[in-house]
Amino acid sequence: MQAAIIGELRAAFDATTVLTGDDIGARYHTDMAGVAVAPPLAVVRPRTTEEVSQFLKLCHRARVPVTTQGGMTGLVRATMPAPGEIVLSTERMNAIEEVDTGGGVVITQTGVPLQRLQERVEQDGFMFPLDLGARGSCTIGGNISTNAGGNRVIRYGMTRDLVLGLEAVLADGTILKGVRKYIKNNTGIDLKQLFVGTEGTLGVVTRAALRIFPAPAEQQVALCALSSFDKVRALLALSRSRLGGDLTAFEVMWNNYYRLTTELVKGVAAPLPTNHPFYVLLESSGSDAGRIRADLENLLEQALEDDSILDATIASSGAAAAAIWRIRDSSVELGRALGPGVGFDISLAIDKMEAFADAIDKGLKTIHRDAYAIVFGHAGDGNLHVNAKYPPPADRYEEISKLVYGITGEFAGSISAEHGIGILKRPYLKLSRTAEEIETMRTLKRALDPYQILNPGRIFTM
Amino acid sequence: MQAAIIGELRAAFDATTVLTGDDIGARYHTDMAGVAVAPPLAVVRPRTTEEVSQFLKLCHRARVPVTTQGGMTGLVRATMPAPGEIVLSTERMNAIEEVDTGGGVVITQTGVPLQRLQERVEQDGFMFPLDLGARGSCTIGGNISTNAGGNRVIRYGMTRDLVLGLEAVLADGTILKGVRKYIKNNTGIDLKQLFVGTEGTLGVVTRAALRIFPAPAEQQVALCALSSFDKVRALLALSRSRLGGDLTAFEVMWNNYYRLTTELVKGVAAPLPTNHPFYVLLESSGSDAGRIRADLENLLEQALEDDSILDATIASSGAAAAAIWRIRDSSVELGRALGPGVGFDISLAIDKMEAFADAIDKGLKTIHRDAYAIVFGHAGDGNLHVNAKYPPPADRYEEISKLVYGITGEFAGSISAEHGIGILKRPYLKLSRTAEEIETMRTLKRALDPYQILNPGRIFTM
Repeated sequence: MQAAIIGELRAAFDATTVLTGDDIGARYHTDMAGVAVAPPLAVVRPRTTEEVSQFLKLCHRARVPVTTQGGMTGLVRATMPAPGEIVLSTERMNAIEEVDTGGGVVITQTGVPLQRLQERVEQDGFMFPLDLGARGSCTIGGNISTNAGGNRVIRYGMTRDLVLGLEAVLADGTILKGVRKYIKNNTGIDLKQLFVGTEGTLGVVTRAALRIFPAPAEQQVALCALSSFDKVRALLALSRSRLGGDLTAFEVMWNNYYRLTTELVKGVAAPLPTNHPFYVLLESSGSDAGRIRADLENLLEQALEDDSILDATIASSGAAAAAIWRIRDSSVELGRALGPGVGFDISLAIDKMEAFADAIDKGLKTIHRDAYAIVFGHAGDGNLHVNAKYPPPADRYEEISKLVYGITGEFAGSISAEHGIGILKRPYLKLSRTAEEIETMRTLKRALDPYQILNPGRIFTM
Repeated sequence: MQAAIIGELRAAFDATTVLTGDDIGARYHTDMAGVAVAPPLAVVRPRTTEEVSQFLKLCHRARVPVTTQGGMTGLVRATMPAPGEIVLSTERMNAIEEVDTGGGVVITQTGVPLQRLQERVEQDGFMFPLDLGARGSCTIGGNISTNAGGNRVIRYGMTRDLVLGLEAVLADGTILKGVRKYIKNNTGIDLKQLFVGTEGTLGVVTRAALRIFPAPAEQQVALCALSSFDKVRALLALSRSRLGGDLTAFEVMWNNYYRLTTELVKGVAAPLPTNHPFYVLLESSGSDAGRIRADLENLLEQALEDDSILDATIASSGAAAAAIWRIRDSSVELGRALGPGVGFDISLAIDKMEAFADAIDKGLKTIHRDAYAIVFGHAGDGNLHVNAKYPPPADRYEEISKLVYGITGEFAGSISAEHGIGILKRPYLKLSRTAEEIETMRTLKRALDPYQILNPGRIFTM
């Protein structure tokens, strides 16, 4: 069967489209952490929706499983090929087709890297607000299939909120032409929702119409130091009320995240002393430079008067703003610098965040006295990232995962705020979703992908 | 079979829950226009999700179709019972369960009227931003199942964007307990999307967790007069750039909408002369009263200097602001005052709106020389409402629908921006959705409602 499908693919596509054997580079079967699995049966690199359709038709008929790959920056091993799978790489579907500034829409193929899309619309004075650390490599298709979040959710929402229309291919090759530019379109079932955040299990997204916004003329970034998490909450409430729709980021860092990043990551400096319990990065955006600056200064003055914050600095230049953002964006580098660890991505109520972080840290000490948690995240969205670190050599992945997800369950949190489930978090899905919900996911899978050829085993098993 | 299911319902529920015969009031089978159909087989009025589940289990087993009713303010005849259907009324599922101001979430049963929810969260200094003319009668469940839009989409999005979690019952009685408070929750397929905007065809929504926001301390409302639609577009661009996230409504009215409403609808006055080609209602919201007012004044001054607007007035009090909103909210009353007509709800690109409205008006003249179009809508969202009026006595519904939807197709518009498809617009669905999309809707229907008991024939037929 394997030889047969390779022959069919070779007959259907040119040699640059179908890679096999030694032509399959390591990047198609190596994850972010550098861990490799066996190479896939083949790598197929279509250029168009029609080629994706043709490819899936063959796989559907031959019952051959497929895993779709974008920028390979995922954190849940969803795109690592399982034995016998063919990789569908979107790398050559990389055309930005139209930037419609009048309508506030960009139309793009989904293999385009996020940063290239951001930069393209910036040329026209617009912004695509989705932004995350992996921007240089991650693709729009990956952003859509994982419903990526990132740094500006507090103002612009998740990827789901930025998708106006999608073109997608179902498992049997059916093309759903849904690239439409309307904000409002209540004409029956909104099928694009089937492909946002579903990790490629229900279809392959090939083109997208995405919302873009006039680039704010002015952004101001401040870094604040705070004495307790209660003060973080107070500052969030004050910022929301004073800055309203101008508040575009509110990122919290526990002391050790800030201190260790500024000490250990090359090129990252500490604009404030490293001895404060909490740090908050605040970003405000708008059209009137003077006002944005004055509003932020007034906010911080009031926060100082109220004793909400201990200290603060406002970036005096674009470079200074970038330097503050670099602290927050260096979590991957920090993780590498600190040795073994397990990363988590949790949603929970903001009034429980401090107790949650304390419980995790305490629990880690029961696993190893030198284990500890580094905590940071998008406080304004109820989303924390936790890096549980421990000394080598033992692999403590399993016991730490059980501990952290157990505590997450106790705090009524979600086990995946923005990273998805993939393979890695599959055993824990039942902590966040009911048995009836998971069974309904299977019902949808059976209906749309009866032979289960699309990313099988990701999210749930059948 | 009919007698059997009634017997089972009587056995399962108390007498106040199951209405039959003369106990079925006219409102369960009369539409907004006062047109009645035959009464349903029964009306069932559950109080809880569990009762809905029990009820649907019986109907599923007996293959008896059900139509779910909320506030009965829909415009596409989706909730009118077809012969042999049982009405599921959500009227007794009317508890607002929790207002969580810390988390910015309200948890409610879905039979609650929109306005009651708005008023409840206002007591705590918050706002539920969804707002539309039918607020007094329409229910949260209806808002969700039609993905209602309304007046503040430009700032807060559609109902879909306000739903954090849903509890829903599938056709076979399976309860999906998805009432969760997180903004971010990427744990597999986002099942709540199956129930937003799907007009009750895939499940019955019983409880919802909805986003609420701190009530803006200050709102300012202005009414502007403009000489052309190009000026409307210029004012929109200027407002977006100057007011940013403070811009909470941008509503356009063609001359005859404004003139006739202020002349004919009781209690509606004209704050500006009625001879200008276009009118725009602008709303701006924020925390700082003085600044919101000053920003709006500066915006209008610049627009006057640029010749973007001919005249403008800013409401000097809450009562004056309400009086301006009343003009925009009186479309139903205006329609009644003007006699026969057909209403449309169209999405299209803003740069085509003027030509579109002119084409409709010209087309109507070919149907009857005294026919004309009244046009108004949410310009900032690419959404126009068109009321095509014509003299009695002939019913011109069919020929006018064909005309308007045909022109909408020519302008690459959507035939339903926010009203849904229901029964009325079903023949025209294919103008906005492809054959493959409609077939995929059927696939979902078969998978989730194999005996097609939930709102059968709404949106599409099998």
